Parts: sequence; structure tokens; C-alpha cells
Amino acid sequence: MDEFMQAAIDEARLGRSEGGIPIGSVLVRNGQIVGRGHNKRVQEGSAIKHGEMDCLTNAGRQSTYRDTVIYSTLMPCYMCAGTIVQFKIPKVIVGESRTFDGAREFMESHGVEVIDLDLPECVQMMEEFIEAEPTLWNEDIAE
Amino acid sequence: MDEFMQAAIDEARLGRSEGGIPIGSVLVRNGQIVGRGHNKRVQEGSAIKHGEMDCLTNAGRQSTYRDTVIYSTLMPCYMCAGTIVQFKIPKVIVGESRTFDGAREFMESHGVEVIDLDLPECVQMMEEFIEAEPTLWNEDIAE
Repeated sequence: MDEFMQAAIDEARLGRSEGGIPIGSVLVRNGQIVGRGHNKRVQEGSAIKHGEMDCLTNAGRQSTYRDTVIYSTLMPCYMCAGTIVQFKIPKVIVGESRTFDGAREFMESHGVEVIDLDLPECVQMMEEFIEAEPTLWNEDIAE
Repeated sequence: MDEFMQAAIDEARLGRSEGGIPIGSVLVRNGQIVGRGHNKRVQEGSAIKHGEMDCLTNAGRQSTYRDTVIYSTLMPCYMCAGTIVQFKIPKVIVGESRTFDGAREFMESHGVEVIDLDLPECVQMMEEFIEAEPTLWNEDIAE
């Protein structure tokens, strides 16, 4: 396992252990993690704190993102994809897109490289969560 | 002046008085403000706290946004536009788009109604800010 995707998975599992939604993310520059986070809808009562958004919050103010890669355990939704496009993050590596197909084409149409690792561990983590908490999941994706 | 756009402008001016970026936003349902906020990049050291994102944070967890309207003093960027699309907010009313053209077409292509009031007060507020703080403004839009 890629160490950065493992860190994103660790964040997701930490979020689930807190009673939250198991999606984690890390931001990497030059082989170093510069921000990490996980979905905090439950923990902070925040609708905008998807895993990627918490990661970017924790990374603080950056003068540029053009030299970064963002990892997420799940394909980014339009909020997170729009953020990636706006911040000009050139590359996204995701754990899976089977449980939520997200906004891959939108990112690619704006020149973002998207790599889907299709990891069974990530699929299983979301499947278990969605089965246990379908209402919470639907709230998080506004379904 | 529409009372809700006035509230968004009040939020923007409050943000500027705090040393921040003067962009404000309110979320409205059935003629009532259910959330309001302003850009807090400077105040919170947060890259994701554009005015609309702070407003949606302050609105808390909502079961639906389909019956809401979001107001912003400036045309939403891709982050905020992606959030509006993901949350299925059907209508956006903005103060202006002269100083930043944002992601209007993207929102419209996803069925969001976008109304641009083109208010001189909003243009002037941003022009004065951009002239005073060009580096901070470029950081906020990742230019």
C-alpha cells in the first residue's frame, strides 16, 4: 500500500471511530504530508467538512497547490472537486469510486489527473458504513 | 436593496473590518436567513472559508437545500459553485461578477439559476480591497 493512501485510510478509520463518516484525505508535497483530515459532519456539525475539505483546512494557507497531490479514500464530490479545480491541485489519487462515483469527469475536463486505485479495503469500509448509517450517508451527499 | 443582499454586504463589510477579505453570504429559506457568514481566510487561517462556505458552515447540518436560495456579494468560484451543485441549492443571487467572473456557466450547466445584480456597491468594495491587498486576493483565488 502507498504510504499516503494508507494515511488517508487511517484518517477515515479514525473518523469512523469517532462516530463519523469514514472518508479520509491527505495533501502531499515533495513526498511529505502537508495536511491530513477526515470527514467531520458529525464531529463538528459541519456540512462542508468532507475529508478533502478538512485536509485542506488543516494544511493551512498555501501560496500554491500546483506542486501538490491530494489523496482521498473516495472519489471527490462536486464540492471537493470544485475545490481541487479552484486551488489548481494537478493530481488526485482516490481509493475507490464504486460506492460513490463523484465528479471525476468534471475534474478531468479541467485538466486534473485522476487515478482510481479501486482498493477493496476502501470499498468495504464505505459499504459497511452505508449499510449501518444510510440516512447519515444520504445527508452527506445531499440525496 | 434586497434585505438578504444587504445582509450579505453587511457580512462582507464586517469581514473587511476584521482585516479579512470582504465577501459575504447568506442562506435563505422561506424568507428567513438560516445561515450567514463571510470569508475567513485571514481570521481563521483557513483556505476553504470563502464567504459561501462560512455561511454554509454556520447554517449547520440541513436535511435538504432544495428549498433555499444562497446570496453572495461576489460570483462563486469553483469551490463554492461545486458546493452549490453538490448540495442542490437551486438558486444563487450575486452582488457582482465584474471583479471576478467565477463559475457561472458551470452552475448553470447543472441547472442552478444564477442572478447577477451587478451592484456598484459590491464592485467598489472589491475594487478597493484588491487595490489595497492584491497578494491576499491572489492567494484567495489561487492565482
